[in-house]
Amino acid sequence: MTNTINNKYEKISSAGNYKGYHQVHAAKIDEEISLIEPKTPCGEFFRRYWHPVSLTSDIGQQPLPVKILGEDLVLFRTKNGKIGLVHRQCPHRNASLIFGKCEKRGIRCCYHGWLFAPDGQIIETPGEASDSTAAKNIRERLRLGAYPVIEYNGLVFAYMGPPEEIPDFPFYDSFSIPDIITRPYQVNYNCNWLQVLDAIMDPIHTSFLHSTISGTQFSEGLGEIGELEIYERGIQFLGSNTRRVDNHVWIRVNELILPNFTQAGAAFAADGTKSRFFGRSSFTRWVVPIDNTHSMSLAWGNFGERGDPLQYNNKEGCELIEQGEVINRTWKERQLHPSDAEAVEGMGPISHHRNEHLMPTDRGISLYRRRIKKLIKDLINGKIMPQPQQIPGEAVRTNGQDTILNMQQKKVNDRKFLRSIGSNVLKIQFEAEKMSLDKRDQYIINKLKEMEKNYS
Amino acid sequence: MTNTINNKYEKISSAGNYKGYHQVHAAKIDEEISLIEPKTPCGEFFRRYWHPVSLTSDIGQQPLPVKILGEDLVLFRTKNGKIGLVHRQCPHRNASLIFGKCEKRGIRCCYHGWLFAPDGQIIETPGEASDSTAAKNIRERLRLGAYPVIEYNGLVFAYMGPPEEIPDFPFYDSFSIPDIITRPYQVNYNCNWLQVLDAIMDPIHTSFLHSTISGTQFSEGLGEIGELEIYERGIQFLGSNTRRVDNHVWIRVNELILPNFTQAGAAFAADGTKSRFFGRSSFTRWVVPIDNTHSMSLAWGNFGERGDPLQYNNKEGCELIEQGEVINRTWKERQLHPSDAEAVEGMGPISHHRNEHLMPTDRGISLYRRRIKKLIKDLINGKIMPQPQQIPGEAVRTNGQDTILNMQQKKVNDRKFLRSIGSNVLKIQFEAEKMSLDKRDQYIINKLKEMEKNYS
Amino acid sequence: MTNTINNKYEKISSAGNYKGYHQVHAAKIDEEISLIEPKTPCGEFFRRYWHPVSLTSDIGQQPLPVKILGEDLVLFRTKNGKIGLVHRQCPHRNASLIFGKCEKRGIRCCYHGWLFAPDGQIIETPGEASDSTAAKNIRERLRLGAYPVIEYNGLVFAYMGPPEEIPDFPFYDSFSIPDIITRPYQVNYNCNWLQVLDAIMDPIHTSFLHSTISGTQFSEGLGEIGELEIYERGIQFLGSNTRRVDNHVWIRVNELILPNFTQAGAAFAADGTKSRFFGRSSFTRWVVPIDNTHSMSLAWGNFGERGDPLQYNNKEGCELIEQGEVINRTWKERQLHPSDAEAVEGMGPISHHRNEHLMPTDRGISLYRRRIKKLIKDLINGKIMPQPQQIPGEAVRTNGQDTILNMQQKKVNDRKFLRSIGSNVLKIQFEAEKMSLDKRDQYIINKLKEMEKNYS
Repeated sequence: MTNTINNKYEKISSAGNYKGYHQVHAAKIDEEISLIEPKTPCGEFFRRYWHPVSLTSDIGQQPLPVKILGEDLVLFRTKNGKIGLVHRQCPHRNASLIFGKCEKRGIRCCYHGWLFAPDGQIIETPGEASDSTAAKNIRERLRLGAYPVIEYNGLVFAYMGPPEEIPDFPFYDSFSIPDIITRPYQVNYNCNWLQVLDAIMDPIHTSFLHSTISGTQFSEGLGEIGELEIYERGIQFLGSNTRRVDNHVWIRVNELILPNFTQAGAAFAADGTKSRFFGRSSFTRWVVPIDNTHSMSLAWGNFGERGDPLQYNNKEGCELIEQGEVINRTWKERQLHPSDAEAVEGMGPISHHRNEHLMPTDRGISLYRRRIKKLIKDLINGKIMPQPQQIPGEAVRTNGQDTILNMQQKKVNDRKFLRSIGSNVLKIQFEAEKMSLDKRDQYIINKLKEMEKNYS
Repeated sequence: MTNTINNKYEKISSAGNYKGYHQVHAAKIDEEISLIEPKTPCGEFFRRYWHPVSLTSDIGQQPLPVKILGEDLVLFRTKNGKIGLVHRQCPHRNASLIFGKCEKRGIRCCYHGWLFAPDGQIIETPGEASDSTAAKNIRERLRLGAYPVIEYNGLVFAYMGPPEEIPDFPFYDSFSIPDIITRPYQVNYNCNWLQVLDAIMDPIHTSFLHSTISGTQFSEGLGEIGELEIYERGIQFLGSNTRRVDNHVWIRVNELILPNFTQAGAAFAADGTKSRFFGRSSFTRWVVPIDNTHSMSLAWGNFGERGDPLQYNNKEGCELIEQGEVINRTWKERQLHPSDAEAVEGMGPISHHRNEHLMPTDRGISLYRRRIKKLIKDLINGKIMPQPQQIPGEAVRTNGQDTILNMQQKKVNDRKFLRSIGSNVLKIQFEAEKMSLDKRDQYIINKLKEMEKNYS
Repeated sequence: MTNTINNKYEKISSAGNYKGYHQVHAAKIDEEISLIEPKTPCGEFFRRYWHPVSLTSDIGQQPLPVKILGEDLVLFRTKNGKIGLVHRQCPHRNASLIFGKCEKRGIRCCYHGWLFAPDGQIIETPGEASDSTAAKNIRERLRLGAYPVIEYNGLVFAYMGPPEEIPDFPFYDSFSIPDIITRPYQVNYNCNWLQVLDAIMDPIHTSFLHSTISGTQFSEGLGEIGELEIYERGIQFLGSNTRRVDNHVWIRVNELILPNFTQAGAAFAADGTKSRFFGRSSFTRWVVPIDNTHSMSLAWGNFGERGDPLQYNNKEGCELIEQGEVINRTWKERQLHPSDAEAVEGMGPISHHRNEHLMPTDRGISLYRRRIKKLIKDLINGKIMPQPQQIPGEAVRTNGQDTILNMQQKKVNDRKFLRSIGSNVLKIQFEAEKMSLDKRDQYIINKLKEMEKNYS
């Protein structure tokens, strides 16, 4: 029996290539770009932009506790229908406004009945004498911390930065695509926002996580690895992936507008087997930090001809679009068929970037992370942060899409051909950017049909 | 659709008064007065007084783990009936005495059988040779950390300070009021002791939390806001609140004796609609720190003619007296009808005093906190802490009470009238303080009846 | 009633010996010897030895997350049957290999499909272009952190130290005792490894914890306190305990080989009432640190003539052998009948050695702890750590055992007699150490029989 052991042992000693011991790294996180709580550099960066903070449908008759960017807040709706987003503690004695009452003019603290308007004004301090000068002064000079909000189409957005720098609310073209039906949804992640966001600039993971590893979670054609091209245009980043699926060429564009707006192509409507011209994203989505180690996706699912099939217009359908699997699964199911949640949460509460080894296919990720670091430096140096609008006063043009062209393989070097098709498609989109919105889409679609026709 | 958004947005940009961003304060707690674990200034202050540590009924045949002032302790009763309060770890090898055996002479450690007397003496070390000098030395020189305890009427009290400075056990007049039936109770809070204690010097919260906000939790008259007067008398603080309820004037006195003894009037017996003369507190209560972020109320509920109605003499009744609601409630119930627990726990584990804005009605709170800080300074400077006894060897006179006098409104300035009645009532109580206990109560009651009679 | 209180109080003030206040120690742990996470001195010491890390039976078709010495690892078996122990995060983008797929050649990451061999080699990076130089370089130069493993008889062992210093896998004589049936088992502890290990050098606790306190958990004779003798032989420590049980003398030897290998006598087979000659340990066991505050016992239970009765050859039987009670018990049962788990976990996450008072019977514990500290210093000074092998290339001779000799009490000083018998038995064992394994056992048994015979 000693021999059995020694035989095995021989193999081990000859293999001096076990690196476990020498590669135990002390945990280090990239604080500058990961941490978003108040007073952090990246937290300040996030506070220069509008973000969704809740589904409208989650705000009922009682105050709703929310945590955004590491701040404990309360979201409420007055009996007159106005929405307020305020600090959680009452500025009198720190009682929690979660236990407040929603009234016509605002929210009333449970402890001593102070009444606050949605913008933080102290309307009443009823426990104090009506002629009290001290109370009058407090009402005039003090405010409950509050943030401006806009409710739109089932999502509540807030701006949590300095009020003197409040930017325009960015209205994206995808907020109102004709014939598209939208459904607001929220999905939470138990990890830092950055590892959730990274996936949008990583179109390659779809070919593994959502295809060969877990079985086909989206359409089958996504298993193909395509030709990847990255575009950096101000704070907009595009990752186009051009695949060959039999007789078709499939150009899919993932989109990130900093700091956290994301779009892609369809999750289920496109599979590379029949033509599609400038189909739009299955989601219009923001990755919003809850705190340093928790985040959430707040989004609309987009359904219809140019979006995803109507059969997915329900809670489970949106979960499938968001991460490839429904959320409520056993540990065994999660281990056998991991989704985005398992991939990104498995990295730990905050992924240690210093342990990563980024590859050529990860250049979208490197690019946008570097850009955030640059913007943070600019912000520290007093610069105004660039906003998404390309044309002042008009909806932001977005580029996330699917196009599938019937183009049989002819060339010897098909990879090179795919790359040229990919860049031609993007060129058309960029050309049309300054057209009025209704003209733009028609222009792009016509041009794509022309390309397909000219080829055959 | 762009217009809809821009209209909303106009309103926001014109309202430059959102203060959320500029009022995000870094969390800071008032360590000096909040922290009570060993070696902290306020912990030392607490350790100069007797405190209840448990209900007697919780001590069974097995040792009971308790945590008091941040110390892990074990409470046990020998088979001879003596109660011991000792450090949790055995001084031999640190095994937990939670697993010890209660015997006639003390508690025996489960690991090596060492036997400890309630006062910490090591009686046996049976694993060591009977002639071992080392073992003999240890038995003679070492002790298990122990604290003196007194069991009284269903509560166990302990003194956890330096034994050489042990004060008299303070016997309060309310320990034995003729015809009053007492019931010991315990209610735990998930927050620092100070925010639980604050409420006793804040009689105004009753008019909101327990009335207009949650619906009437105590008697209806408590919804009225009265005339508040604060008395500081050594380490005793009184907050008298004098309300008008139709034809009656209701003088209610809340009481705090430092560091943590509290009394008030009745919770249910008095509602301002019929006469009452020197009714006594619904509870005789201590707010005891478990650790820095947990605390408990250990108390007797007081029932009978001069206390609360006998129908509340049960577990749920004591919970209602303690915080206005029973403890076992759903989140929804807690949000709709918050009680003291929601008000004080909602401030967080330790309330950030620097974010408070104290008002004229909070002067009781300001006063007593300042006094504790002063006492802590005195203690550091070597002074002996003042104890509650007014007359050496006699029961402490307490002043928490309800008096309701039939006095129809006559004067133009009724608020001023209420204030004068309030101070007259307190004056009578103070005059009687040095009388023998049985005479005192009769004297006060007679004087109050006289006041009522003289008025009409 | 005041009198009652004062009477009690008199007793307290006269007893100035309550030491609770003066003995509140700030928590201090012995970091040097307790902490085993990466880069700690004791962690480095542990990383010079082979340790079991899992039951083979726990490795199924999916990867198994394990934590050893504070490192998050994944244990897996390839479809070809090879076992790998690797760092948990993929070196590409930090995805968790818990969600990897076990294939013929290794484990494949769920996120981008990288394939790793059990020794950490990167076999495939399929998302990168097949002609990518960057990808080729990464595959050649980078490795997933991995550790060498050996599977033996139901346990998986690993070496987590510097590969250039890998020691021989130590094969102990007890791995293959003729006629002994072994059963691998694992029991977890919620505390630092050291307090679990201490018990093996503390044979006295058996007479209390496992006998008089909890009732007889092992055999009845263990309630007797015997004559204790400690032997330090290199990194091997032996604690022999020689008891008188009526007409028999029972010599039981507990054994520790640093850092964490333990053996003893039988748990149930021996009770001191009939002769037994060189019976072997009920377990062959390692105390393995999970992290600084959690540990586990990985072991074989040993059954048969020279081990424990076959009726204990099941999961519950092994739990009884390991700690005196089954694991799945209520709090009430645990408090009434504490086992080793309660004794050692009750010390807290990491026992504070500075609060201990070690006694003469604890000298085994003092000795071996001091030796570990010495070895840690040697390691820091560049010395090679001594390994358990006494004879190069041969199984390690172990000495844990039970011997019971029929020797009626004759002498006046029976304690002295017991001590001499104890040391004679150990002398015989040591004499036989260099014999071939099969001869050794027969030699010892014959000599013991002779001793018994010569006495009567």
